[in-house]
Amino acid sequence: MTGARIDSDRLWRRIMDLSAFTEPERPWTRPAFSDLHRRCRDWIRAQMESAGLEVVIDAGGNMAGKSSGSIDGLPSIACGSHSDTVPSGGRFDGAAGLAAAIEIAHALADNGMRLNHAFEAIDFLAEEPTEFGMSCVGSRAVAGKLTAFSLAAKSPEGTTLAEAIDGMGGDSARLGRPLRGRCDTAAFFELHIEQGTILERAGTDVGIVTEFVCINRHSLKVAGEAAHAGTTPMDVRRDALVGAATLVQNVSERAESLNSRGTYLVATVGRIAIQPNGANVVPGSVELALEIRSNRVEAVRDFEAGFFQFAADACCKAGLKFDAEQKSSAPRVSVNEGLRMHLREAAASSGCSFREMPSGAGHDAAHMSEVCPSCMVFVPCLRGRSHCPEEWSDKDQIGRGAQVMLEAMLSFDALACPK
Amino acid sequence: MTGARIDSDRLWRRIMDLSAFTEPERPWTRPAFSDLHRRCRDWIRAQMESAGLEVVIDAGGNMAGKSSGSIDGLPSIACGSHSDTVPSGGRFDGAAGLAAAIEIAHALADNGMRLNHAFEAIDFLAEEPTEFGMSCVGSRAVAGKLTAFSLAAKSPEGTTLAEAIDGMGGDSARLGRPLRGRCDTAAFFELHIEQGTILERAGTDVGIVTEFVCINRHSLKVAGEAAHAGTTPMDVRRDALVGAATLVQNVSERAESLNSRGTYLVATVGRIAIQPNGANVVPGSVELALEIRSNRVEAVRDFEAGFFQFAADACCKAGLKFDAEQKSSAPRVSVNEGLRMHLREAAASSGCSFREMPSGAGHDAAHMSEVCPSCMVFVPCLRGRSHCPEEWSDKDQIGRGAQVMLEAMLSFDALACPK
Repeated sequence: MTGARIDSDRLWRRIMDLSAFTEPERPWTRPAFSDLHRRCRDWIRAQMESAGLEVVIDAGGNMAGKSSGSIDGLPSIACGSHSDTVPSGGRFDGAAGLAAAIEIAHALADNGMRLNHAFEAIDFLAEEPTEFGMSCVGSRAVAGKLTAFSLAAKSPEGTTLAEAIDGMGGDSARLGRPLRGRCDTAAFFELHIEQGTILERAGTDVGIVTEFVCINRHSLKVAGEAAHAGTTPMDVRRDALVGAATLVQNVSERAESLNSRGTYLVATVGRIAIQPNGANVVPGSVELALEIRSNRVEAVRDFEAGFFQFAADACCKAGLKFDAEQKSSAPRVSVNEGLRMHLREAAASSGCSFREMPSGAGHDAAHMSEVCPSCMVFVPCLRGRSHCPEEWSDKDQIGRGAQVMLEAMLSFDALACPK
Repeated sequence: MTGARIDSDRLWRRIMDLSAFTEPERPWTRPAFSDLHRRCRDWIRAQMESAGLEVVIDAGGNMAGKSSGSIDGLPSIACGSHSDTVPSGGRFDGAAGLAAAIEIAHALADNGMRLNHAFEAIDFLAEEPTEFGMSCVGSRAVAGKLTAFSLAAKSPEGTTLAEAIDGMGGDSARLGRPLRGRCDTAAFFELHIEQGTILERAGTDVGIVTEFVCINRHSLKVAGEAAHAGTTPMDVRRDALVGAATLVQNVSERAESLNSRGTYLVATVGRIAIQPNGANVVPGSVELALEIRSNRVEAVRDFEAGFFQFAADACCKAGLKFDAEQKSSAPRVSVNEGLRMHLREAAASSGCSFREMPSGAGHDAAHMSEVCPSCMVFVPCLRGRSHCPEEWSDKDQIGRGAQVMLEAMLSFDALACPK
């Protein structure tokens, strides 16, 4: 089965039309669970229907446009991403992948083609961080990872996550166990902007994700002694900020040094709070948020062992107290090798340059991989900017990524089909 | 004239009694202009009267207890400090000096002694930072430094500083020119806890202040680029916090290196704010508050020249933008050498160890030095802690300091008196 072509112009137009659903005073803002997001969902439903899909909403509040396959009883090949944004976010994060999924259905329909398997384009609910303290709500729901505890989490307005999901057409009473299994879904594909600069710098068309990095988060605390900034001589100070500065630099240097062929590691101090935070007071204590991500769990362990030893020694030497508390740990998730093979071959046969690379960010595909073979395609984005209004990707780049995904889907559909 | 002895117990009791005027739930808190402060002032008035002083309030809202001298027409020898505190402050900052001034009057009266000059014990209004964005309100008023602009400054509740001064018995319409001159005041003496550790570490009884440090404040800004903490490799980041950390360390090392015999210099980054301040975002920009204090203006210039060059180079090398803006500059104020001589001799003759030292903090005496010869005595305090409930000084230490101040006052009184 060949011949289905992605219409890049139509795909692009859907991304642009989708971006019109924004809070007008701060483009582009479309928070999950908002009235705006509900209106946007009506438009998405219409787009799915115009591509020949029949729309349902699952218990997790995910909107899926489905078409049947040519062979009865085969599970579906699913494809999708999300339509919500962070505040003052961009037009491509999530939207590009959702529009690509709809375009694949549209391209198949245009050619009068049907897969052997059923097909689904999915708009996952609430992929971005929500006011319930959780991201990837919809794909976690599919994977059965929404516990009663997390469903009871309340927004500042007092709504529970369960109520919010129900408000988007979900059925929270049915959550807590996986909504899909391999009998329902043969494979999941997601296209997304890279949100980094690796593809752009290398001039590569497509990234094929090998794994999702593990993410460890720690809260660090450096305690010294607040003192009068005028009367406390330099040599007797126990300045917590000076100590914290040593740690911030070590995090950066150590992380850079641990990168090598095959090891991707990033570590970031993204948050800092100091006490008392007065212009004329020597800082008494500092809290830092440390995040480490890597495609290799051992690299994270190396980083942590080395850094915590360094921090304890450096603080002790400076008369400071150092404490660290692990706040969270998200495991590394590897991407299905069979699907990656289909993506590599599709890229090669369609003349696209590609590279295999870890995903430094979490995505719905990482959660979907718990219920079915899943894979992910990255397309380049301008200067790696994301989660900001400047986020940008190119029409042809997105089109090429979608074409590669479609070709891989077709070859998987043929190969995974019972003879 | 000899024989007047400070009663350390009575002095101590007044400090303790004064500390009872506090917001009960957060000792020790007695904000200037509060009802609590007004009630405290009633008590101070009674204490001054019990020491034989006649109480008036000047246009700046300062409370002064006066007694006449034995020679008509001589200006007064004034002594004092302040009774307000920072929130959750201590019991000695200001209070020790005010109680010492009252005790000096009391000790003289006990012995039936009068100075040749008139005597005044002064409680300066609002020495600590106020919600009008200014400290040392009362002593600035005396020096004629409250402009119409500063008097119009409003608290968050909408009260002007002028109204607040009037509410404490002042007369703001008369402010804007000096309230005293050399014809009114022959000398000013202030006792204060050191708020540092120099005396305590050296086991010295009394510090004789040589000068008040100059204070320069700058706002520093380091700008990089916010980026996704998962997808942005270490080697392409422009992390503003990593850059800022280099500056924080340089401030500390550079300041320490510039200290030498005769040069006291401290530099502090006491405030930091980062954007966007998210655990999973590479910091895009950082603002720092830098304060430099020294007894030598040239040392501050050396610090600034070296640091700003370093900061510009380091940020440029890291692909970051560095900006600095001077926010304020308070000049160095030298202490009257004649009064220092009286203090040295008084310390020596009363068997107190002493050292001459700059004051790293601003005090009412620095403003008083603009209208009359002024000097200052430091007494040791525990571990340099100040502006906190743990602030502590010793009864005998305060008593020794007050005795030295009294002896110096007596010898000045004798010497400065027309034959």
